[in-house]
Amino acid sequence: MSDVAVLGLGAMGSALAGALLDGGHAVTVWNRTVDRAAPLVARGASAVATAADALRAAPVAVVCLTNDAAVREILAGAPGTTLVNLTNSTPEQDRNLADWAAGQQMTYLGGGIMAVPPMIGTPAASVFYSGDADALERHRGLLERFGRVDYVGADPGRAAVLDLALLTAMYGMFGGFLHAAALIRAGGLPVVGVEPAITAWLTAMAGALPEMAAAIDSGDHSETTSAVRMQALAYPHLLEASRESGLRTALVEPMGDLLSRAVAAGHGDADLSVLADLLRDGRVPSMDSDGEETSDEQPT
Amino acid sequence: MSDVAVLGLGAMGSALAGALLDGGHAVTVWNRTVDRAAPLVARGASAVATAADALRAAPVAVVCLTNDAAVREILAGAPGTTLVNLTNSTPEQDRNLADWAAGQQMTYLGGGIMAVPPMIGTPAASVFYSGDADALERHRGLLERFGRVDYVGADPGRAAVLDLALLTAMYGMFGGFLHAAALIRAGGLPVVGVEPAITAWLTAMAGALPEMAAAIDSGDHSETTSAVRMQALAYPHLLEASRESGLRTALVEPMGDLLSRAVAAGHGDADLSVLADLLRDGRVPSMDSDGEETSDEQPT
Ligand SMILES: NC(=O)c1ccc[n+]([C@@H]2O[C@H](COP(=O)([O-])OP(=O)(O)OC[C@H]3O[C@@H](n4cnc5c(N)ncnc54)[C@H](OP(=O)(O)O)[C@@H]3O)[C@@H](O)[C@H]2O)c1
Ligand SMILES: NC(=O)c1ccc[n+]([C@@H]2O[C@H](COP(=O)([O-])OP(=O)(O)OC[C@H]3O[C@@H](n4cnc5c(N)ncnc54)[C@H](OP(=O)(O)O)[C@@H]3O)[C@@H](O)[C@H]2O)c1
Repeated sequence: MSDVAVLGLGAMGSALAGALLDGGHAVTVWNRTVDRAAPLVARGASAVATAADALRAAPVAVVCLTNDAAVREILAGAPGTTLVNLTNSTPEQDRNLADWAAGQQMTYLGGGIMAVPPMIGTPAASVFYSGDADALERHRGLLERFGRVDYVGADPGRAAVLDLALLTAMYGMFGGFLHAAALIRAGGLPVVGVEPAITAWLTAMAGALPEMAAAIDSGDHSETTSAVRMQALAYPHLLEASRESGLRTALVEPMGDLLSRAVAAGHGDADLSVLADLLRDGRVPSMDSDGEETSDEQPT
Repeated sequence: MSDVAVLGLGAMGSALAGALLDGGHAVTVWNRTVDRAAPLVARGASAVATAADALRAAPVAVVCLTNDAAVREILAGAPGTTLVNLTNSTPEQDRNLADWAAGQQMTYLGGGIMAVPPMIGTPAASVFYSGDADALERHRGLLERFGRVDYVGADPGRAAVLDLALLTAMYGMFGGFLHAAALIRAGGLPVVGVEPAITAWLTAMAGALPEMAAAIDSGDHSETTSAVRMQALAYPHLLEASRESGLRTALVEPMGDLLSRAVAAGHGDADLSVLADLLRDGRVPSMDSDGEETSDEQPT
């Protein structure tokens, strides 16, 4: 028996297996495309021919494939094995896989990796885990090889909720930066020269997130230094400047629509945090493309 | 004569006038709604009855109204006066106003305030200025009362380009956070408990912005730790989780579309930074609602 098996040796799986080898563990590896195991075998891993073999080669198997469909294709029952699924998944996919695992007398931990592969094995990486708490404690030493272990509860889907929430926040920031970069280049400036100002500004503005979080939890959005109405009036400027520069505005239009909706719904004096409520509330009046209010009972 | 006039005493104009009073300057103020001048008059400002009076009351006039339309309504010629327009504007609006000012023998500085009102007068505030460099130097002492003076060039529209670029980045981050918060609440968790992890994650991920900026400037997007293809495959999970939670997905769909377009256009192995190019390139194939490629020569 190895200490741990790693199934899936893409960019992330290879980093995970490498961190375990660096930690001195006996590691069994498996990948659909056999060649990708070679660098790890050269570092001391044992390669096996089938996923089923890998799942039975150690008390704990770490799976990191493209997506849930790929995981479903390769999984085989391995009674007694703890399955640690670090494949990016939805909460539902994790819950369904945990049910399947229970039916196979396997224990399940869903995980969400908050790192890119080069960060694995460094203090910069952290991983959310949820599911079987005893299994987490039993294998904590191994899992700490990847980065900080952040256990978030027994619901096997909870790690995915947090993973996807953090990714959502990240893609928002990256999307804003990418559109900003396009504006800067269209304005004839190098992005490298402006990036430090953007980063400093984002860091300063991230200072508002704790108060926004508290407002969202309490539902009280009345405290604000920048009311939604003022923002709804200024926001069109970035849309106009983008159009004048010939940019696609797809990434930046929805926020303008949401600000307009918020004003139309009577939230002009509220803080921006009120928008989080509007994302949940299917009953907020929406605007059709002519700017007319339409009755919209469905989330869109 | 006063040292400086401030026209527009909303949340921001009042903060600007207050910082000038705190600095010991003689300040003339004007606001359409007369009452709003009272707190500043109590602190030593002189109120005048018309915008034209204010523009002639000092060698430099700071204007901070809702938008360009409001500025256009109240402006009057005042030969010799330097107009510092801190109203959020598009680059075109600033350039047009600079032309108008030149016709009135006035000098012009466009500005973009990177602060909320409580930050004005603190080291946390900074303001982009562009336009007449001599005027900037002449009035630097006054302008430094607001926060850091960041002069970005002679083109009067350049401050607006940078202002709008930073706001775009900020709204991206806030939009991502707001949708993340909605996901977290839909998952039954308090946002306050997760916000520290989001902020830490955003801070870590902002570490990628310098490299993304360099890639965008050079057009070489081949260096990556997370290729677009992998991201395009994982992104739908946050959309699915949002739909399962009954959230409106308007804020998060465009990034998914853009990732798909990037893969379809042959950029699957590139870094996320390639998306900035796609925002500028009207010739990228786009998907219609059935996921079919359509020939799309127009930016959308
Ligand atoms: N890379 C990152 O920055 C990052 C960060 C956080 C989380 N993640 C997550 O980690 C997971 C893996 O990402 P990655 O970057 O390692 O992706 P990757 O480099 O594209 O690797 C994908 C892996 O999945 C395997 N695979 C795909 N379909 C399969 C199938 N039908 N049957 C068997 N194996 C299959 C591939 O095998 P072959 O070699 O045979 O193709 C390969 O091992 C994803 O869920 C991703 O969202 C990645
Ligand atoms: N607040 C912020 O966080 C912030 C941050 C950065 C930049 N800014 C920018 O600063 C500018 C002012 O924002 P604010 O927060 O001070 O807004 P505000 O509190 O809503 O004040 C708006 C000001 O504009 C005046 N105004 C509007 N329409 C007018 C018209 N037709 N004629 C004459 N005066 C008119 C208002 O006069 P009345 O009092 O008579 O209505 C008031 O003085 C905006 O461009 C905003 O984008 C604001």
